[in-house]
Amino acid sequence: MPLTGAAAAMSSFEDADTEETVTSLRITVYHPGQMQNGIFQSIRFSNPEKLPSSEVVKFGRNSTICRYTFQDKQVSRVQFSLQLFKKFHSSVLSFEIKNMSRRTSLLVGSTELGYLNKVELPYRCMVRFGEYQLLVEKEDGESLEFFETLFMMSPRPLLQEHGWPAGKPTPELCRSPSWSTQSACPTEMDENEC
Amino acid sequence: MPLTGAAAAMSSFEDADTEETVTSLRITVYHPGQMQNGIFQSIRFSNPEKLPSSEVVKFGRNSTICRYTFQDKQVSRVQFSLQLFKKFHSSVLSFEIKNMSRRTSLLVGSTELGYLNKVELPYRCMVRFGEYQLLVEKEDGESLEFFETLFMMSPRPLLQEHGWPAGKPTPELCRSPSWSTQSACPTEMDENEC
Repeated sequence: MPLTGAAAAMSSFEDADTEETVTSLRITVYHPGQMQNGIFQSIRFSNPEKLPSSEVVKFGRNSTICRYTFQDKQVSRVQFSLQLFKKFHSSVLSFEIKNMSRRTSLLVGSTELGYLNKVELPYRCMVRFGEYQLLVEKEDGESLEFFETLFMMSPRPLLQEHGWPAGKPTPELCRSPSWSTQSACPTEMDENEC
Repeated sequence: MPLTGAAAAMSSFEDADTEETVTSLRITVYHPGQMQNGIFQSIRFSNPEKLPSSEVVKFGRNSTICRYTFQDKQVSRVQFSLQLFKKFHSSVLSFEIKNMSRRTSLLVGSTELGYLNKVELPYRCMVRFGEYQLLVEKEDGESLEFFETLFMMSPRPLLQEHGWPAGKPTPELCRSPSWSTQSACPTEMDENEC
């Protein structure tokens, strides 16, 4: 019996491969000049992006080389790169970060990376260079083929002057539904709101 | 006093930056079908190639992605990748090799790498997948900006059936001047010549 359109759609839905969850990397960025200078204008915030796990994801100033660019002359053409790998006898994907800048050191947590130094990313850490602050949070998934990136912008510094994590909640911990759109990141926010 | 042409050339020679040595990777390849099937036809043997240290060098079948291609349907689009990094507190560059093939495992020495597994290359090791044998030898250099690759073809298997390194010298140990040109790699060579 030929299937009707709706039945065919349901059948194809029922026969489709089970969707796998993907490893995701949530990157919350902050730079003191972010509202004035358009530094992050080429980054699509709150927009999950699926990438092949073979990709070496580059961050920097040069848009022909880098997937994610910072519009800032103080940023190196390639500032750093991220890539996936799989540890022996592990079913999950891990990330490695490598400093690609000859000029600027990269801080990953409290570890300082010189040019071409690399380190494995923990599940949650601060990545810093110059005045840039990036909170990188990883969530495991099943797929070995793809992973996902998601960028958020923080209206306030992620790092308190007196060390991180600070005693009081920092903005990245405010996971209210309002974080789901970029416009919901006010430039002015009462400190007590978080 | 204006310089004559020769004096100017000498002056520019004398004032030029001191040339740095580069880290080099000598890769001696062998595949049983190498003479019949043109598997290595796109690789320029005995021709040192200078590459930026930021490059992730891919080996595989797809020539738009890979710098070094093997013309063989049994090879994955990307079989493996090599990249440089710098260990903390080290002045020399190190290489890391990552298996990019979902189908085939990669043997680095006696370590078996699954998809996306990676390992640091020792100074001298055998890299194997399918019927491919690659002897990879590293030599340290001063430059952090560039490194060099050099491919050789071995007329005979690099790996003896009864383990490697074998008791008797294997072809890669024959560093006679004749190795400096590709034509000097005979297809037939008396076992006793080595």
